[in-house]
Amino acid sequence: MPAVDRINRQWVLARRPIGQVRVEDFARRDGPVPVPDLAAGEILIRTLMIGFDPAQRGWMDEGASYMPPIAIGEPVRGSAAARVVASRNPVYPEGAVVRGLFSWQDYSVVALRGEPAPVLVAPDVTPEEALGVLGGASLTAHVGLNQVGGLRAGDTVLVSGAAGAVGSVAVQIARLRGARVIGIAGGAEKCRWLVKDYGADAAIDYRNGDVAERLAALAPNGIDLFFDNVGGETLEAGIAHIARFGRIVLCGAISGYNDVTPAPGPRNLSRLIAQRAEMRGFILLDHMDHVPAARAELTAWLRAGQLRYRVDIQQGFEAIPATFLRLFSSASQGKQLLRVE
Amino acid sequence: MPAVDRINRQWVLARRPIGQVRVEDFARRDGPVPVPDLAAGEILIRTLMIGFDPAQRGWMDEGASYMPPIAIGEPVRGSAAARVVASRNPVYPEGAVVRGLFSWQDYSVVALRGEPAPVLVAPDVTPEEALGVLGGASLTAHVGLNQVGGLRAGDTVLVSGAAGAVGSVAVQIARLRGARVIGIAGGAEKCRWLVKDYGADAAIDYRNGDVAERLAALAPNGIDLFFDNVGGETLEAGIAHIARFGRIVLCGAISGYNDVTPAPGPRNLSRLIAQRAEMRGFILLDHMDHVPAARAELTAWLRAGQLRYRVDIQQGFEAIPATFLRLFSSASQGKQLLRVE
Repeated sequence: MPAVDRINRQWVLARRPIGQVRVEDFARRDGPVPVPDLAAGEILIRTLMIGFDPAQRGWMDEGASYMPPIAIGEPVRGSAAARVVASRNPVYPEGAVVRGLFSWQDYSVVALRGEPAPVLVAPDVTPEEALGVLGGASLTAHVGLNQVGGLRAGDTVLVSGAAGAVGSVAVQIARLRGARVIGIAGGAEKCRWLVKDYGADAAIDYRNGDVAERLAALAPNGIDLFFDNVGGETLEAGIAHIARFGRIVLCGAISGYNDVTPAPGPRNLSRLIAQRAEMRGFILLDHMDHVPAARAELTAWLRAGQLRYRVDIQQGFEAIPATFLRLFSSASQGKQLLRVE
Repeated sequence: MPAVDRINRQWVLARRPIGQVRVEDFARRDGPVPVPDLAAGEILIRTLMIGFDPAQRGWMDEGASYMPPIAIGEPVRGSAAARVVASRNPVYPEGAVVRGLFSWQDYSVVALRGEPAPVLVAPDVTPEEALGVLGGASLTAHVGLNQVGGLRAGDTVLVSGAAGAVGSVAVQIARLRGARVIGIAGGAEKCRWLVKDYGADAAIDYRNGDVAERLAALAPNGIDLFFDNVGGETLEAGIAHIARFGRIVLCGAISGYNDVTPAPGPRNLSRLIAQRAEMRGFILLDHMDHVPAARAELTAWLRAGQLRYRVDIQQGFEAIPATFLRLFSSASQGKQLLRVE
């Protein structure tokens, strides 16, 4: 077994955030490294890189969601790439790199009795790729568009949060599949990325002008498939222009994640009746059977130079909470990662 | 050809209603009876009974819906049962009774070049049954639950507007299919009907207490299928208690039909993500292939005494607009009909 440190640094949830999440909602703690008492089947991993996702904000609230809430005083749950430093499981040899839902600490014991199991990262895939362009956000875009949204060539597709980790891949997948794509993002720079880097046919800057008016001009025949990461007013604008028999895929609702009092929802849901449209919420975990094929396709596109991806890599264990907060400002310039040092 | 009157009474749309529809939005007009210049294939019908539906309110607004708006100065479009008084179409012999989307006038020429064609009413079915228990509202309930909502035995089904024309049949169909049914209606009397006449397992009076709290108590495992006729806060309460992989069928949104400024929508649409639930709007016209089987099943249930139905029959041509307004008060005591005299 390789040498491990004596101290296991952790960031734990100190209290449940109220409204906007703050750095003070987390606390640093040092514990002993949980070694060497591995049971049969268990592995000990050392975190290399952490990936951040807006959905983690929901896990910090009390109450049942699709996952139990993160307990107060426990390390925060989150995606990471990690090296196996000790193993009593032949699937995960020492030295291998794995990607999975771990937590904000240097060392974790993974019991491998529950779901989902960590995924072995291929030797030619970097931790940055494993958590970024080939990670959960990209898989979510792939599954959401194809399995949930029934993406077809020729569709007019609208993507909100289109410059983000999920959205930017959704834009590109829709284009690669032969759809016409309109992206919504905040600010002129992100809108330039959308068209120039991700190949969107058009971009709408929600901070500059009326989204619904721009949609009317850009999609006079309506939106066939709306992949929504934002909710709220953005969702309302998309519903206003949904095509007959249109599909709305609800992937996220970042506009409301930090709200104490939920904002009013779309005022125009009766459009769904007139247009015979449907709206479906989904999470990646229900579609794990499609993940291997989706990952293989994303990898092929990536190696062929057909998939562009932006990452924002922060450095150092101490910066973890501040890096998480970047998701909810406009600071993130791409998929938010942090290299543990 | 039987004798016809010389005067064709009409109620036309005088102006587009703003907000709450009023009697003054309509005007009486007398015209000549459109006879005897029938072209080949056409029929002349005399209206016997008119059926009223909240969806007509939407057709009175400007702007494209699933049907063109009713033109100002034209007789108001609506369901009716009518007798064929002259025919140049062998499918519709003189003397037959037909049911279809006609208009608020004594006599109409039906060209039979567009869709949907009038339906011949069987000799043992009364006009009241044709427009009521076997009419569009009941067919909408049948198709919405089965074709759109995928109703299954054992489902916990929530129906809003449950004492209404669509809702009361939806409650009964769900029960006949082996579901557990909770109905939402306004007032203690309607809630009594729900349980006593329509066989709902439980009723919630939305005027008396908190709907979401009652739902939590009545459906601790959540709602599998929510058939919503109301929208707004009622929809929000249903979403709050939707089960994992639950289905919401949007049939109507009467809470908002008379709004000038649309009311805020459900604040909790992100529940659809956490619960992986879906919401689908539909209209009967897209499901006409299922209508014959649905009508046959409804007829069989009716003749077997398994289907209860309430009608509210007003009298006389002059009362047509006032009768339409009853839909939006609590005056209607069942499917709203009017016998033309």
